Amino acid sequence: MFSQTDYIHMARALQLAEHGLYTTSPNPRVGCVIVRNGAMVGSGWHQQAGQPHAEIHALREAGDAARGATVYVTLEPCSHHGRTPPCAEALIAAGVARVVAAMQDPNPQVAGNGLALLQKAGIATECGLLEAQARELNAGFIKRMVMGHPWLRIKTASSLDGKTALSGGASKWITGEPARRDVHRLRARSCAILTGIGTVLADNPELNVRAVETTRQPLKVIVDSRLQTPPSANILGGAPTLIACAEPDARRSAGLEAAGAEIRCLPGDAGQVDLGALLSLLAQRGINEVMTEAGATLNGALIAAGFVDEWVMYVAPVLLGDTARGLFSLAEPAQMQERRKLVLRDIRQVGADIRITAQFEKN
Amino acid sequence: MFSQTDYIHMARALQLAEHGLYTTSPNPRVGCVIVRNGAMVGSGWHQQAGQPHAEIHALREAGDAARGATVYVTLEPCSHHGRTPPCAEALIAAGVARVVAAMQDPNPQVAGNGLALLQKAGIATECGLLEAQARELNAGFIKRMVMGHPWLRIKTASSLDGKTALSGGASKWITGEPARRDVHRLRARSCAILTGIGTVLADNPELNVRAVETTRQPLKVIVDSRLQTPPSANILGGAPTLIACAEPDARRSAGLEAAGAEIRCLPGDAGQVDLGALLSLLAQRGINEVMTEAGATLNGALIAAGFVDEWVMYVAPVLLGDTARGLFSLAEPAQMQERRKLVLRDIRQVGADIRITAQFEKN
Repeated sequence: MFSQTDYIHMARALQLAEHGLYTTSPNPRVGCVIVRNGAMVGSGWHQQAGQPHAEIHALREAGDAARGATVYVTLEPCSHHGRTPPCAEALIAAGVARVVAAMQDPNPQVAGNGLALLQKAGIATECGLLEAQARELNAGFIKRMVMGHPWLRIKTASSLDGKTALSGGASKWITGEPARRDVHRLRARSCAILTGIGTVLADNPELNVRAVETTRQPLKVIVDSRLQTPPSANILGGAPTLIACAEPDARRSAGLEAAGAEIRCLPGDAGQVDLGALLSLLAQRGINEVMTEAGATLNGALIAAGFVDEWVMYVAPVLLGDTARGLFSLAEPAQMQERRKLVLRDIRQVGADIRITAQFEKN
Repeated sequence: MFSQTDYIHMARALQLAEHGLYTTSPNPRVGCVIVRNGAMVGSGWHQQAGQPHAEIHALREAGDAARGATVYVTLEPCSHHGRTPPCAEALIAAGVARVVAAMQDPNPQVAGNGLALLQKAGIATECGLLEAQARELNAGFIKRMVMGHPWLRIKTASSLDGKTALSGGASKWITGEPARRDVHRLRARSCAILTGIGTVLADNPELNVRAVETTRQPLKVIVDSRLQTPPSANILGGAPTLIACAEPDARRSAGLEAAGAEIRCLPGDAGQVDLGALLSLLAQRGINEVMTEAGATLNGALIAAGFVDEWVMYVAPVLLGDTARGLFSLAEPAQMQERRKLVLRDIRQVGADIRITAQFEKN
């Protein structure tokens, strides 16, 4: 169905889309390449919400050369009037002959309508070229559109024997500087960084992006049932911070709000924050990708609830001993057959450490 | 000092040496290539103790063509009369012009004498080409010669959260079939497999080589302070088994000896087996490489004593929860700076699992 040339152009469009890794949210990352007579006459990528979509950048570059051309786009062109006019209409107006999309837009406002609009205008359309790669690039946007939750990635740093800190709490530093820098790349692509009150009190982290250049900082989110975050905590500096609590406390709330935080009360079971409600709230606010940098308790609760999609695990070639702190507070399965399964996506060395990326199997 | 051609021929000699991975012990794995006028005129590898060394195989193949040739050998040619006559003399008699060795023989009976003998006979000698690779191939032989202990490799199979079994003991199977088959390759290259009484009683393993072809089975060694191994245990079938105990027990010894085991009493501290003495004993018997397939207690004790050289860690992409059994019974360091360090040597995927090979840093 697709030719060798089709693959090459779509791969280029995917590369272009990746330029938007740190900037497009709440929109997806999209790239576009326009080809006529075998030559690329236009290309573009979506940079930021409110600005033109990838197709518009590419059409502008192509000008009249777009007439009769093939358009490769990593996501179905939009059919709805959002902050910008529909791309499908612009492609029709430009007189393109063929549109190849890597995947349908999961946005229920589009969901096939963009391609249908093009077909009705007599344009040849195809969908599904390098779809797996396109889905991976926008796993967060897709999950938010389909499930109403953000893509949740947990990040850990541990020893080869699976320990994250000494029993007294010391954890600086298990992994080396290259691994810690790599974490900033994950932070930069995240729309929000989620942590727990335990980590805030123990490590007083900033949880902002420092080691890589970015034009935006992720929202910081603290699960803090009893509003124990000190108004002087480092995390409250810089980017906006949302604190989710389980019971209201006017006095503490006032102090934290004065320090710039937003407080949301989302009571769940047993005096804990309702994590599902928190994730829904984040999705409603256009948060596509969330990364946790939290301790064994919050990470364990998120895994147990089935909310975690991906685990990025930095492993240092050291041993901390069996009384040191473990990775997750998580109930043991009754039998081996019931063990929680993941699928390896990537294994590589980062400096002297290992980085393992695995995704949770969906039941 | 060495030419591109020298590297190519020595690399070939190393490849040949690897053919002896499962068979040469107590001897080292050695390969040899003889080159005249740029063409390989002879090659060989050492197959088994008592049989000709690599150089002799290569000289036989080369015949008269050896005269004036260059000999590439992965280990210094021997100078002593062992089970076979000295290779240095054979090389001199064959009239070779130049001998390049990857490394000196660590055997104190040779240790430079082989090369000296060749030099005295007017043969040009060089040493140190691809030495790191040559050392890796014979890490066990070298350690035994230099330290009087075998190379000790621990093998573990664990979940991503660092657990080896459920708290009830169930561990079949954490890793998949490809990883378990890979373990048989490690067993086949080992001269001995070391385990503890806990593993014998819990899993009743055979600990022999099944999944790969081999002409020899490693010696099986059980650390069993109080001689609790049942005479009917699977491990006593097939290849010879040595049981190390901490106090003699004539009745139990008799039963185990009747089942084919050899008993050695090696009392250490606190009613435990003296692990250092056991490793010395194994080295005295020509054991170059030992692999442990043991539980957290024995592995932890071996690591704590500084006896472990290498850790081959199979990690399955599953979670077992924080109450499941951990990797090592090992004391926690007082501070992060004192954590036990390793160096990564290899990371790869084996089936759906990860295999990490790391070596302990020597203090």
